[in-house]
Amino acid sequence: MEETFVPLEGIKNDLRGRLMCYKQDWTSGIKAGVRILAPTTYIFFASAIPVISFGEQLERNTEGVLTAVQTLVSTSICGIIHSIIGGQPLLILGVAEPTVIMYTFMFNFAKERPELGRNLFLGWTGWVCVWTALILFLLAILGACSIINRFTRIAGELFGMLIAMLFMQQAIKGLVDEFRIPKREDTKSIEFLPSWRFANGMFALVLSFGLLLTALKSRKARSWRYGSGWLRSLIADYGVPLMVLVWTGVSYMPTASVPNGIPRRLFSPNPWSPGAYDNWTVVKDMVQVPVVFIIGAFIPATMIAVLYYFDHSVASQLSQQKEFNLRKPSSYHYDLLLLGFLTLLCGLIGIPPANGVIPQSPMHTKSLATLKHQLLRNKLVITARKSIGKNASLGQLYGNMQEVYHQMQTPLIYQDPSTRAQGLKELKETTIQAATSMGSVDAPVDESIFDVEKEIDDLLPVEVKEQRVSNLLQSVMVGGCVAAMPILKKIPTSVLWGYFAFMAIESLPGNQFWERILLLFTAPSRRFKVLEDYHATFVETVPFKTIATFTIFQTIYLLICFGLTWVPIAGVMFPLMIMLLVPVRQFFLPKFFKGAHLQDLDAAEYEEQTALPFNLASQSEFGAGVSHIGEVQRSIAPLQHQEVILRAVLVRASLLILGWASSRRSKVPRSGARGPNSPIMPREMRLSNRGISPLKPDSKQQDKK
Amino acid sequence: MEETFVPLEGIKNDLRGRLMCYKQDWTSGIKAGVRILAPTTYIFFASAIPVISFGEQLERNTEGVLTAVQTLVSTSICGIIHSIIGGQPLLILGVAEPTVIMYTFMFNFAKERPELGRNLFLGWTGWVCVWTALILFLLAILGACSIINRFTRIAGELFGMLIAMLFMQQAIKGLVDEFRIPKREDTKSIEFLPSWRFANGMFALVLSFGLLLTALKSRKARSWRYGSGWLRSLIADYGVPLMVLVWTGVSYMPTASVPNGIPRRLFSPNPWSPGAYDNWTVVKDMVQVPVVFIIGAFIPATMIAVLYYFDHSVASQLSQQKEFNLRKPSSYHYDLLLLGFLTLLCGLIGIPPANGVIPQSPMHTKSLATLKHQLLRNKLVITARKSIGKNASLGQLYGNMQEVYHQMQTPLIYQDPSTRAQGLKELKETTIQAATSMGSVDAPVDESIFDVEKEIDDLLPVEVKEQRVSNLLQSVMVGGCVAAMPILKKIPTSVLWGYFAFMAIESLPGNQFWERILLLFTAPSRRFKVLEDYHATFVETVPFKTIATFTIFQTIYLLICFGLTWVPIAGVMFPLMIMLLVPVRQFFLPKFFKGAHLQDLDAAEYEEQTALPFNLASQSEFGAGVSHIGEVQRSIAPLQHQEVILRAVLVRASLLILGWASSRRSKVPRSGARGPNSPIMPREMRLSNRGISPLKPDSKQQDKK
Repeated sequence: MEETFVPLEGIKNDLRGRLMCYKQDWTSGIKAGVRILAPTTYIFFASAIPVISFGEQLERNTEGVLTAVQTLVSTSICGIIHSIIGGQPLLILGVAEPTVIMYTFMFNFAKERPELGRNLFLGWTGWVCVWTALILFLLAILGACSIINRFTRIAGELFGMLIAMLFMQQAIKGLVDEFRIPKREDTKSIEFLPSWRFANGMFALVLSFGLLLTALKSRKARSWRYGSGWLRSLIADYGVPLMVLVWTGVSYMPTASVPNGIPRRLFSPNPWSPGAYDNWTVVKDMVQVPVVFIIGAFIPATMIAVLYYFDHSVASQLSQQKEFNLRKPSSYHYDLLLLGFLTLLCGLIGIPPANGVIPQSPMHTKSLATLKHQLLRNKLVITARKSIGKNASLGQLYGNMQEVYHQMQTPLIYQDPSTRAQGLKELKETTIQAATSMGSVDAPVDESIFDVEKEIDDLLPVEVKEQRVSNLLQSVMVGGCVAAMPILKKIPTSVLWGYFAFMAIESLPGNQFWERILLLFTAPSRRFKVLEDYHATFVETVPFKTIATFTIFQTIYLLICFGLTWVPIAGVMFPLMIMLLVPVRQFFLPKFFKGAHLQDLDAAEYEEQTALPFNLASQSEFGAGVSHIGEVQRSIAPLQHQEVILRAVLVRASLLILGWASSRRSKVPRSGARGPNSPIMPREMRLSNRGISPLKPDSKQQDKK
Repeated sequence: MEETFVPLEGIKNDLRGRLMCYKQDWTSGIKAGVRILAPTTYIFFASAIPVISFGEQLERNTEGVLTAVQTLVSTSICGIIHSIIGGQPLLILGVAEPTVIMYTFMFNFAKERPELGRNLFLGWTGWVCVWTALILFLLAILGACSIINRFTRIAGELFGMLIAMLFMQQAIKGLVDEFRIPKREDTKSIEFLPSWRFANGMFALVLSFGLLLTALKSRKARSWRYGSGWLRSLIADYGVPLMVLVWTGVSYMPTASVPNGIPRRLFSPNPWSPGAYDNWTVVKDMVQVPVVFIIGAFIPATMIAVLYYFDHSVASQLSQQKEFNLRKPSSYHYDLLLLGFLTLLCGLIGIPPANGVIPQSPMHTKSLATLKHQLLRNKLVITARKSIGKNASLGQLYGNMQEVYHQMQTPLIYQDPSTRAQGLKELKETTIQAATSMGSVDAPVDESIFDVEKEIDDLLPVEVKEQRVSNLLQSVMVGGCVAAMPILKKIPTSVLWGYFAFMAIESLPGNQFWERILLLFTAPSRRFKVLEDYHATFVETVPFKTIATFTIFQTIYLLICFGLTWVPIAGVMFPLMIMLLVPVRQFFLPKFFKGAHLQDLDAAEYEEQTALPFNLASQSEFGAGVSHIGEVQRSIAPLQHQEVILRAVLVRASLLILGWASSRRSKVPRSGARGPNSPIMPREMRLSNRGISPLKPDSKQQDKK
């Protein structure tokens, strides 16, 4: 993405890009069929549960003016609108913690002013939203989002970690409170006797740890060894919602022996009671707000606007990381414009506005990557099996699979045809290699030679099912929660705390900052494992001491930000601290770290060097090496996570045995070196092993230019 | 072991064999130094905790006549005597559940007879022990243990599983009881109010699951990625006792807010109170027992003798499984004789006798295998580093390592010198292969080429530190528990239940019956994984349907045995059901399963065919293949569990790439086939990869003949 500050240019570009794939956004989502429900349910829970909890928090802080009903309605309305006319449909909208903090602050301010008071609070926040919307419009039109590419990994991941810490903090705080008497309750009821309070706390520990551990386990079901494939898939797809149900069920087991109120459950207003929707008519209160407050509303509006500008863009960025290999364009400018409208709308109907949320947005993309993988895989497996059934040769088999793969590709009109051709070429090359290894391309294949499922798993690159259906459905379901409030009230709060902890932990894998923190605690002899699990190139290219220094700096910065969130009002402005990272990264860090190291640890587009030309000859030879031993691999069957390292070993083995480099070996130092003789595989090879050909230009990057 | 029924012949052989290594049993144990404390503490806890719990059970059942003090004293005395003059020092003695059941039955019988009553109960059990001892003497002298080799894997593992189930049942029962009012207690105390009972139960859940999960995790510390090596070793060695301490500590955290008695803790008599040792003078009561009861004592004595004969021998057998590569001889006959004396002794001083226990005995061997591995490894690593420091060539390096390995070998006087030579040869061959792969045997080595730790880990075979020190020390420590009873009483019972569950789970890995049960639930495409993790040959040689049938038969048999333990008195005789497995295995099963399959699933010495002659040529060629790619492997660093499978892949890769068998490949079906072209490695290769050379005759087997 270029930095374009020509007014409206960014919005125009965004609109153009997204309109081209708009139809496909719907058709591909609908074509996915029932399977789309897996990511939908997963994200619905991740979206609804925090929103309900924030709603409860807001209710306590605003003396009941705003409740979970309002936060749910806001999340739902904004989500539905964004999923239909928004730019990036991977972005999930919701009422977030910073909004709650801001609204609390504003309520406390309004309450103490006789001119406003509790009654005009929503009217005044209406004005705040008007101002916020105006600022957002301005930012969007002027192309403020262009600087999003100055937000490097260091900033995005630090923010992600901070959110994870806040979620974890909420989980721990919630659990500790289970042992205490809640503020608003009647302290004389039986369930607040010391014995029952202790019992409630212990029960809460059981429920929340039960949910956390089983939910984490269920997410890994696909790689379980036991149970049939469909059962494992089902558990992996719907395990987390299922566990919420299961542990809610468990919470009802001892009802005969405990008083009502143990364990504590969600406390929420009845959305069907009169007065629950008083806020709809806030517009007529707005005119009663004194002019000085209308103008004064500009101050909190600036803060909220900065907050939203940052949150929304970073959430969007994190859901579109390079690793996901997205094919459709981003839409930062247009989405910020739309957010302005949504804020305005929310302000006028007296509900707290929603914005792009972390970690839900990246979670959404991840779950869609899994879906796309499943869909492609199933289709190709069926095709391969059919071909084998018809006694097709490997050549034919490849042809059929290629055709299906072609059919399932996102047909982007604006896409460079060469890119698409290469996607196919990749598939072809691998299959041909496999064919060569069989010794014959023309002989009929059978499954004893061509392990269909394994083979196809290897072929498929990371791809994301980019569409609008899952976002729309989950927003509708969040809206449905308002109606279903009497059912939701059955969920114990302790399950909620477990779910918060689950979300915090789920957001960590893939975060390189987190991986580097872990690396600090890794025994030196096991640091290579990092290479294996995370495909982290920096482990081999950057000295450990540099990695450590960089990580410790980042950790201290994170802790400062975390500390800031505890400061009563100024705390809301912690995004400013994170924005400060942009100049820090650009001007300060290069003074302490070598450019190459910094680029490996935290690639910045504005610093990027020209890519190393990839050696075609070496690739083809390397490919041949793979093909020779392909058969062996197949005989070992699903190695899952070990696959990457195995391939590296195999390739290396083949190179060595074929006499490559054997003469020079003893002279080559063990680490740090690159090239075909290095004991660690060159990056290009590893990428190619992962099904991502470095030959293929990054389509997304191209599109944006 | 031959089946010798010549009177005293078995005992003589046992004594001869064990006397030869008696001195070494002590010296090697002492030479291990402080490290011996790791297996000692581990087994001490595994031994003491169940004994205390069984003691509590006995106290309730015998109205306080026998308590935890007596069971601990018995376990300690028998353990000390056995560790000093016993035959197999790997065998752990303790008061076991069947003994508790028998004593309960005898107490209920005696109580209702006016001639005996509560007062003469111990006198009468004295007579029972006299008879038991006589029967055991007879069995030992007549060589009844010779038939131990008719107890194949199916019987031993079924028994092991049954014990695991009983431990797990105890854990669950214990936990459920935490929610109830204990029988003997004053039901009006505050801690038995419904609220506190519920709180106690929930707290118990937290403590026991906490202990279980953390103890299981800590056992795997050695393969953790984080923390330095010594810390990980420390946690792996002492993690379980440490966790008992930690969770006991946690149980004291809420003392301020809970009444005394929450959570419930061990209830044990004060060993310092008067009357605690009344049982010592039981001999003078024995003369008062009416003659008819003295004669009648023969009936329970037979049952106990059969039980002990079986338990003791199977516990001994399970602690000496082939997988452990033990070098010192077994001692079934002599140990049974000694058990007779121990039973007599216990009877005369009025304490319940101890016998060989499962799962503690195999746990003991396993922990000593880890110890031996650590000791050998450290020594070799130091030697290798020293040699490298002196700029030694690989040839010299090998020489030095060989010398150290030689020094650390158990110097068994009676051992066939060829066996020892081969142990060394093995080390030599591997090192020489490594040297060849480096291209030069004479050039100075450095660690970048020769990854010392990894290399040595690969070289070392499974070996057990066979000595008497750990058994003696743990017995003394169990004795020390009597004095430390006031401290032990601080342990919450819920931690105990967690520990029971931990022991049940810890006893499962390595049990092939359990692994086959898991295999039944494994998705077909992942069954190969079993090969990888358990080195189970049967997966490739026996059709799945046969494995399933065999396993289901065994499971039904297990469930019948488990059901039997619930039958009030006859239940004690469940060992008879397991003994019945011997004829079932010998005469019944061969009618339903093919001989070769049966041999693979449950090798029986009496059915054993002559071993396949191992093809020397193919081994050397295969070895060369490994050496060529040795370097690659090293560059990948610790792959731990994947090592075996990786090696298989590498060997296969090298064979293929070297052109071996490439012409015939497409004709070979995918599974079931053997030979160098089979996609699955022939067994000999795999064994050799694991450091167990099929060339080396099983030294233990030889010695016994």
